[in-house]
Amino acid sequence: MEGPELESSLLTQPWASVCFGKSAFLAKASFRDTGYILLISDLSSVWYESADAEAVRQRSKELNKRLTVHVSSFLHRLRNLVCPLLTGEPDTATSFSCHRTASGLKVHMKSDLSGLPLYWDFHCCPAPVSRHLVRPLIRMSLALQYQVQELTSLLIQKDAEIEDYRESGATLSRGEEGSVSGSLPERSSSPSAWRATRGSRLSPLR
Amino acid sequence: MEGPELESSLLTQPWASVCFGKSAFLAKASFRDTGYILLISDLSSVWYESADAEAVRQRSKELNKRLTVHVSSFLHRLRNLVCPLLTGEPDTATSFSCHRTASGLKVHMKSDLSGLPLYWDFHCCPAPVSRHLVRPLIRMSLALQYQVQELTSLLIQKDAEIEDYRESGATLSRGEEGSVSGSLPERSSSPSAWRATRGSRLSPLR
Repeated sequence: MEGPELESSLLTQPWASVCFGKSAFLAKASFRDTGYILLISDLSSVWYESADAEAVRQRSKELNKRLTVHVSSFLHRLRNLVCPLLTGEPDTATSFSCHRTASGLKVHMKSDLSGLPLYWDFHCCPAPVSRHLVRPLIRMSLALQYQVQELTSLLIQKDAEIEDYRESGATLSRGEEGSVSGSLPERSSSPSAWRATRGSRLSPLR
Repeated sequence: MEGPELESSLLTQPWASVCFGKSAFLAKASFRDTGYILLISDLSSVWYESADAEAVRQRSKELNKRLTVHVSSFLHRLRNLVCPLLTGEPDTATSFSCHRTASGLKVHMKSDLSGLPLYWDFHCCPAPVSRHLVRPLIRMSLALQYQVQELTSLLIQKDAEIEDYRESGATLSRGEEGSVSGSLPERSSSPSAWRATRGSRLSPLR
């Protein structure tokens, strides 16, 4: 998969909370035998690196002079060290540190491979915040607002159906404690709903 | 209200879509007799200006040499020219243009006041994207996700109540067409719901 496609495929992937040293970030990554792409954000900026097999082979030689594994094995090892970090199960034998550079964010990784120390530096450049953070969040909010409207209208229909049963003299086998208390309007005007509704002013952005 | 308070009060105010010349932006503003604060975003950056009465008085004198109105009247006029823009009813006699500067975004406004031309420049400096765009969007998504869960559990209770009425042999006066078709699980696994659920991975950011 080419860099741009790989980057697009990451758009639908959720962000995970990670720590590089003492610094907390959001991150998402996609690893292939032919390369990887890594996205990192601190909510103010987004950085990414898209590295192909050749770039990985060269940097691997510079950082790990004694290591002589094929680049695909090296990429496989990188994936196995980074992915657990994203799923909240970091490998204790692997340490990460990061520092900002003039050109972006550098994440340094130290681990081991077949008994030898393994070093890797992710060289991440700035990526557009709007594409990777703001627009996906707006799309998600709009999808959720649509779902809230959908569920609310369904609830109104079911309330009418229940009212009809009651008017026809039907009673609940479990007695009235089986009946759902709390009126829908009350719930819909909860503070969270209200904040969400105001947010719907974002819709012109679609 | 002081600048920081004024800025905080804008956090809960929804963004509006505006056009400065041919450029589309989001904006929100708060005007007082004692000054104003303006927030502008293109989804990649956020810019803001917080101007007090003295700053407005001085700039007004530089830009409108023949104009001799009190600063509060001038601020009142500014509000009446900017607020319709935010509500989607721009005054046709007022034109806006903007250009990016080294220090931020400058929005130039041309209108009139008591028969004389009225000029104003908003000098907006960069503001944190995370504070004004990303975090509010995350909070809104989390509030909406909570509301979807709340509505879904309420629907499940109402379905059980309806099922109970049916089992007890009750029928709808309107006949079965009165019954709500479509099962909840089906609706809950709609694409939008699915995207939203994935988005819930953002929750560690709270």
